[in-house]
Amino acid sequence: MNASRPNTPLLDQVQSPEDMKQFSDAQLCQLADELRQETISVVADTGGHLGAGLGVVELTTAIHAVFDTPKDRLIWDVSHQCYPHKILTGRRDQMRTIRQGGGLSGFTKRNESPFDPFGAAHSSTSISAALGFAVARDLGGAPEHGLGDAIAVIGDGALSGGMAYEAMNNAGHLGKRLIVVLNDNDMSIAPPVGAMSSYLSRLYAGEPFQELKAAAKGAVSLLPEPFQDGAKRARDMLKHMTVGGTLFEQLGFSYVGPIDGHDMEQLLNVLRTVKTRAQGPILIHAITQKGKGYAPAESSADKYHGVSKFDVISGKQHKAPSNAPSYTSIFAQSLIKAAEKDTKITAVTAAMPDGTGLDLFAERFPNRCFDVGIAEQHAVTFCGGMAAGGLKPFCALYSTFLQRGYDQIVHDVAIQRLPVRFAIDRAGLVGADGATHAGSFDIAFLANLPGFVVMAAADEAELVHMVATAVALDDRPSAFRFPRGSGTGVDIPDKGSVLEIGKGRMIAKGSKVAILSFGARLSEVEKACEHLGAKGITPTIADARFAKPLDRDMILQLAADHEALITVEEGAVGGFGSHVMQLLSDEGVFDHGLKFRSMVFPDTFIDQDSPAKMYAAAAMNADDIEAKVLDVLGVGQINARAN
Amino acid sequence: MNASRPNTPLLDQVQSPEDMKQFSDAQLCQLADELRQETISVVADTGGHLGAGLGVVELTTAIHAVFDTPKDRLIWDVSHQCYPHKILTGRRDQMRTIRQGGGLSGFTKRNESPFDPFGAAHSSTSISAALGFAVARDLGGAPEHGLGDAIAVIGDGALSGGMAYEAMNNAGHLGKRLIVVLNDNDMSIAPPVGAMSSYLSRLYAGEPFQELKAAAKGAVSLLPEPFQDGAKRARDMLKHMTVGGTLFEQLGFSYVGPIDGHDMEQLLNVLRTVKTRAQGPILIHAITQKGKGYAPAESSADKYHGVSKFDVISGKQHKAPSNAPSYTSIFAQSLIKAAEKDTKITAVTAAMPDGTGLDLFAERFPNRCFDVGIAEQHAVTFCGGMAAGGLKPFCALYSTFLQRGYDQIVHDVAIQRLPVRFAIDRAGLVGADGATHAGSFDIAFLANLPGFVVMAAADEAELVHMVATAVALDDRPSAFRFPRGSGTGVDIPDKGSVLEIGKGRMIAKGSKVAILSFGARLSEVEKACEHLGAKGITPTIADARFAKPLDRDMILQLAADHEALITVEEGAVGGFGSHVMQLLSDEGVFDHGLKFRSMVFPDTFIDQDSPAKMYAAAAMNADDIEAKVLDVLGVGQINARAN
Repeated sequence: MNASRPNTPLLDQVQSPEDMKQFSDAQLCQLADELRQETISVVADTGGHLGAGLGVVELTTAIHAVFDTPKDRLIWDVSHQCYPHKILTGRRDQMRTIRQGGGLSGFTKRNESPFDPFGAAHSSTSISAALGFAVARDLGGAPEHGLGDAIAVIGDGALSGGMAYEAMNNAGHLGKRLIVVLNDNDMSIAPPVGAMSSYLSRLYAGEPFQELKAAAKGAVSLLPEPFQDGAKRARDMLKHMTVGGTLFEQLGFSYVGPIDGHDMEQLLNVLRTVKTRAQGPILIHAITQKGKGYAPAESSADKYHGVSKFDVISGKQHKAPSNAPSYTSIFAQSLIKAAEKDTKITAVTAAMPDGTGLDLFAERFPNRCFDVGIAEQHAVTFCGGMAAGGLKPFCALYSTFLQRGYDQIVHDVAIQRLPVRFAIDRAGLVGADGATHAGSFDIAFLANLPGFVVMAAADEAELVHMVATAVALDDRPSAFRFPRGSGTGVDIPDKGSVLEIGKGRMIAKGSKVAILSFGARLSEVEKACEHLGAKGITPTIADARFAKPLDRDMILQLAADHEALITVEEGAVGGFGSHVMQLLSDEGVFDHGLKFRSMVFPDTFIDQDSPAKMYAAAAMNADDIEAKVLDVLGVGQINARAN
Repeated sequence: MNASRPNTPLLDQVQSPEDMKQFSDAQLCQLADELRQETISVVADTGGHLGAGLGVVELTTAIHAVFDTPKDRLIWDVSHQCYPHKILTGRRDQMRTIRQGGGLSGFTKRNESPFDPFGAAHSSTSISAALGFAVARDLGGAPEHGLGDAIAVIGDGALSGGMAYEAMNNAGHLGKRLIVVLNDNDMSIAPPVGAMSSYLSRLYAGEPFQELKAAAKGAVSLLPEPFQDGAKRARDMLKHMTVGGTLFEQLGFSYVGPIDGHDMEQLLNVLRTVKTRAQGPILIHAITQKGKGYAPAESSADKYHGVSKFDVISGKQHKAPSNAPSYTSIFAQSLIKAAEKDTKITAVTAAMPDGTGLDLFAERFPNRCFDVGIAEQHAVTFCGGMAAGGLKPFCALYSTFLQRGYDQIVHDVAIQRLPVRFAIDRAGLVGADGATHAGSFDIAFLANLPGFVVMAAADEAELVHMVATAVALDDRPSAFRFPRGSGTGVDIPDKGSVLEIGKGRMIAKGSKVAILSFGARLSEVEKACEHLGAKGITPTIADARFAKPLDRDMILQLAADHEALITVEEGAVGGFGSHVMQLLSDEGVFDHGLKFRSMVFPDTFIDQDSPAKMYAAAAMNADDIEAKVLDVLGVGQINARAN
């Protein structure tokens, strides 16, 4: 797409960080520049995460130059920023496969390279993992490559996650040598929120940045000599020379910074000093700029966080036109409409205002929308408090991130039967983000909570109804899930209808076999049934709408009226199909025979690909459903597959 | 048991906090003393949580005297300390039923009293909930009683939970009026750990405590006038007058303290000033003593955190003798034995060294045992890092608290297939701690994770084998669950055997019906089968041992050889029985009829009672199993119930 590749003479010599060891500092500076150009070139061709990587080009180069990876364990938090790291660590040739089926992951991944000692994708895990490596080193754990330093690179956005604080609290207590680089770009995906973010800004707001450079360079040479008399004096001097940093020091970390994360000389200086002399946990506070060095990214509001393929010269992204609005936007518009009439509706996002559509809600109702940072535990219980206080909170999270608030859902919402509404985006398999972002488990982990109402939208019109239903449901918790991407293109009702709780709907009356769908596989079910119709098989099709409470009458009737019943859901075992089986077994329906099948995700984590191919890998597309019907009816599968 | 009740003339006048409003400060002091004596008297008779309540007698009295509960929402974090609060808020007459079936909960509970606006039991939730109430107040949420101030009382131990930090980060950002009382007793359940704890100690270590009283009293009169010129100056003065507190100020809170949490005059002063003048979020740092005012508690290592009934004069607890060692101690002893041979074994607890038995492990291997604080998210990923670093970490948590680390189990352990071993204590229904502590969901939320091995111990000998199996299983994550309390009294093997992964065991060969047990209901199954034997019915009994991977061969054989198959597990739907049904349906076993039943927890949260009675409520005791067998075989249930 962008035919001319950048000229990268030094980078061309680097197959592995080992190849950088003989470079001079000036060469390392040039290498970083080449790495930046290569990163831009790659992402222009593939799409993916750009801004984060451009912000850490110098940091990546400096860390690999100074430390001995992979013996020293380098752990990127979230790892949206890992593209330059992948280029330097032997994966340059495969970079143009990134986030594609069979290609490199968009994140660090243990089985992809020894230079990825701990995979990531969810936020705020790196310090915990690094501390684990530090302990393993000190206790004689002996994995491949031996064990040296443990280095976590964590963004300021990820610091809003309580888990990072838990890890610092523990690391400060243990006092083991551990290096944390705070990559402070004043951005997570969205602009930062929270008091910690303001605090970090104040750390370097007081003085012009240029003057700090000298201070920082001087400061690191004063790092405490371990267990020597001068240590306390040096620490005190350091404290005065740096602008702040006391919060980290209060948690037991030595603090160095803030330093300029794009100044290679400064970075190399600091890292070499830290490597030689650091004792105990140390936090290096590096100020970087997301999208650094690529003008279109620097000037964009989201700093080209995640982009489509683009033209390097103009920065123009090539977005595929979409035929139907996304589920996300339908959700947001429905909620806004409802909130115009009902002033008690509030909305909460955990640092994903764009991804959840709540940016639109926030524009319209700035006082009723809360971005709590990457803090799902708090998000859920905060909603619980609002619900107990008489509001109607909508907690909008991706399915995969909802896992972070699971205990709070059980303990603060379900046990108290508080009417918190969970809007679960990215349910099911999500495509390029791969296994770490799959929304596979929410049906199972919600549908066995007493009192919960659990819905899944078969299409975007259904989603409109489910938002209306959740608004109306004020005596217990509820959740509705919907997939990533565009809807099916059905007409969007002007106003949602409040669904009868626990009632499904019949889509088509047929015979012999009934297919009971929960969620957005319904269109695949319908496609399968078209093919089957051509073979003279007309299954009954029903949309369950609810996994909890189940439509007992409908399910028992379907079982009674058909020789086979097949459930389909976009999730793992333990969810909708399991609840249906529990009902059928409790009612003795299996006693006298029912050809029952539950189509759920297979017992594997499915790597990134297009959603359609991931669903093929899960054996849950139309042809798989067709084959299942033929199989259960005892008709040969070979014909089915041929269609 | 302790016949003589304390003399409580003032307390006798208090049916509700309203009745305290006319008391003089001197009377409030006396009321607090009476409340302390009443609390001791109650817990002496009932057992329960004592030390925490004694530490907040003055705080409880002062808050209810100054604020307008229940309009002002008072939220106790964890709420072990809520006994004095319950006594003052109309529940004194029922206090001697606390933690018993049909009696008061040991925790705050919304449906028990309007003075309990948000229930608790798990840690670190109070600030999130209080912030929710504060937002609801400002947005015109109008629940019962109206909405005034939101006050969270949180212990220093609970501050190690990342969720509390997430909430403070958000509260500091929002700037809404919100009152957090940090009840700093330098204790959670165990002695405190973590850098935050050290930090808090430093806040008042610098100066003799007595001298601080005056400072604190003066300081509160200097609280910032909102939006006035003097505000900044006043803040700066406050900062200098108090010893520290900057960490909270850095997160956007006004800080007052430290103050003496047992000095009623000081407490009333501070709270009155805060009530009148506070703007934005404020943190009041109160130093208290766990067990205060009862000598046996003050001098005990755990400050009488949780006690049996006891004699008030001597402090001697009346512990029921146990016939068999507890599962917890068997786990700990097995792990210690294994760790003596295998230096790679480490253990992690989240602030529960006693409860998990890891106190014994820590004594023996202080460098290989890590108490990370109330920080389950970090605990799990920290174990992930250790496993990736070549160690064999055992993450020992209660089932209910494991929910806090669910996303980390999925994202950091399962997806990476890291050999972290989860030792899941308190699986199933737990007795006096009630619904919030039930371990109901772990089978369901673990058994659908690809690659996991999920075991449950049928008795304490099995637990020994499962520890050995987990030690040996070094290529994937594993978990084994076991119940609270004493084992069944079977012989404990000197050395655990490594079980074959995914293989169950036959207990008794019978006919017609097979009962497949997963976990510690096995003894109830055996009891049921004894009764059935008297009726001429001899079920086959098998112990599944594994919910994942399933023993496919055994299950399919049981299905083939019997007209009925019943699974029994101590957990909610979606777990073992659901996986068995998925297998049976996939294999077409239901096609031609199988009387299958899955005995799981009912779709309700079960209130506290004796474990046996809770299992009766869940219909999962021997007589329920017997009835299920008779029912599935078409034999009348009335006869069964009569046995």
